[in-house]
Amino acid sequence: MQQLHIIKIGGKILEDKPKLHQLLSDFSKIEGPKILIHGGGKKSDELCHKLGIEPRMVQGRRITDEDTLEVVTMVYAGLLNKNVVGILQSLGCNAVGMSGADGNVILCRKREKGTIDYGFAGDVERVNSSLLSSLLQEGISPVLCSITHDGRGQLLNTNADTIATELAKAMAPHFEVKLTYCFEKKGVLSDPTDEASVINKLDWETYKALKGKGVITEGMIPKIDNAFIALKAGVQKIVIGSPASIHPESSDKGTEICQ
Amino acid sequence: MQQLHIIKIGGKILEDKPKLHQLLSDFSKIEGPKILIHGGGKKSDELCHKLGIEPRMVQGRRITDEDTLEVVTMVYAGLLNKNVVGILQSLGCNAVGMSGADGNVILCRKREKGTIDYGFAGDVERVNSSLLSSLLQEGISPVLCSITHDGRGQLLNTNADTIATELAKAMAPHFEVKLTYCFEKKGVLSDPTDEASVINKLDWETYKALKGKGVITEGMIPKIDNAFIALKAGVQKIVIGSPASIHPESSDKGTEICQ
Repeated sequence: MQQLHIIKIGGKILEDKPKLHQLLSDFSKIEGPKILIHGGGKKSDELCHKLGIEPRMVQGRRITDEDTLEVVTMVYAGLLNKNVVGILQSLGCNAVGMSGADGNVILCRKREKGTIDYGFAGDVERVNSSLLSSLLQEGISPVLCSITHDGRGQLLNTNADTIATELAKAMAPHFEVKLTYCFEKKGVLSDPTDEASVINKLDWETYKALKGKGVITEGMIPKIDNAFIALKAGVQKIVIGSPASIHPESSDKGTEICQ
Repeated sequence: MQQLHIIKIGGKILEDKPKLHQLLSDFSKIEGPKILIHGGGKKSDELCHKLGIEPRMVQGRRITDEDTLEVVTMVYAGLLNKNVVGILQSLGCNAVGMSGADGNVILCRKREKGTIDYGFAGDVERVNSSLLSSLLQEGISPVLCSITHDGRGQLLNTNADTIATELAKAMAPHFEVKLTYCFEKKGVLSDPTDEASVINKLDWETYKALKGKGVITEGMIPKIDNAFIALKAGVQKIVIGSPASIHPESSDKGTEICQ
């Protein structure tokens, strides 16, 4: 099977122009099929602030009311997505920016109100891989933002890590998928105060033990849980690391998630 | 040759939810390949106003400084484009929203400073029809907004009428193209004060005469000039009319531009 690289980048990289350019340059050099997934970050908070909308977060997830949905749609699907695509085109990488509504690529359902009402937050129901596959076959790299839809005309805001996981799972029957979650650290750290303490390979037993000891804490847990879900669903290789880790010759290899 | 419908809609339709929904419902019922093109309008002016950016227009064209480019990228490529795609998906029309940067579909050059500096305004240099053709072949309807790029990482703002014209010209060798410019009137009027005075067929001689008499004035002239350019370049049929004119059973047929 052909290899497919799926790279997820977070808000902090998107906001740092030189780092973003370096990452996109490295991405554009990856040979063969590749997909980039991005969320948002500070830019949408800034715009909310300027417009008098108070950003609300609960357990690391944004509460998306109607005004906030408008802002994240503008920032993620408009400003960030099109700028990333524009830069990739300048680097010779033929990218197509998409939300989950485009080609009905990621169909979600609005999260039901429980103890918390997340507003217009979408949980992934189905990934339609056929359009993505045909774009990849034409040498085009899809760039997905974290705006999705419910198929009934409602746009939704979906966690970008979750999109990366679900997409990797959906592509795994057709490709040998390598999924990389890029973030601001060099990998999963065995000592959170020591940037050099990157765990090279993290298996389920070690993860459970480190979680038990409180070494791996809140912010990392959903990311690693996502990674194990993807691994169990047939994704070939999963790495959590810095943007440098996507460069084939980088000494930063990040943390590989193993069974 | 297979027929291709290219429909351009203006800002006033995008801002009127029931009218937009009706138009998208009519669009979704058009059989065979179809492309929708939209600009922006009041929404970006409103956002500029809220952010303290003063919109500047010269001869019906927006002066796009850096802050304004950010706003129109957010509104056109984000908010409007994704909402249109979401509604089309709910109507069973598999749409993919795009800017000119996506798939390098519309490559522009930044307009040179003359007596007026238009800022980040882009004039169309090349339309790459191959991705559009392959999407159409898969039964997907591209929805293009009026944000383009220069191929060197710079996004640009391009007139949506011009995009529709250039796109129709580029698709004409491959399809029998019917291009419709939808706007707020029922067509080109022989008496601007009488909505019922729609000219059914407008040829070059009549156009010149009406322009000479001052019947056809400033706002309409670039639109009609564009239409004649497209006609000369091989576009099969060109109509300027109301949104209703795209409905096959509508009594509003708009104004057909003829040689």
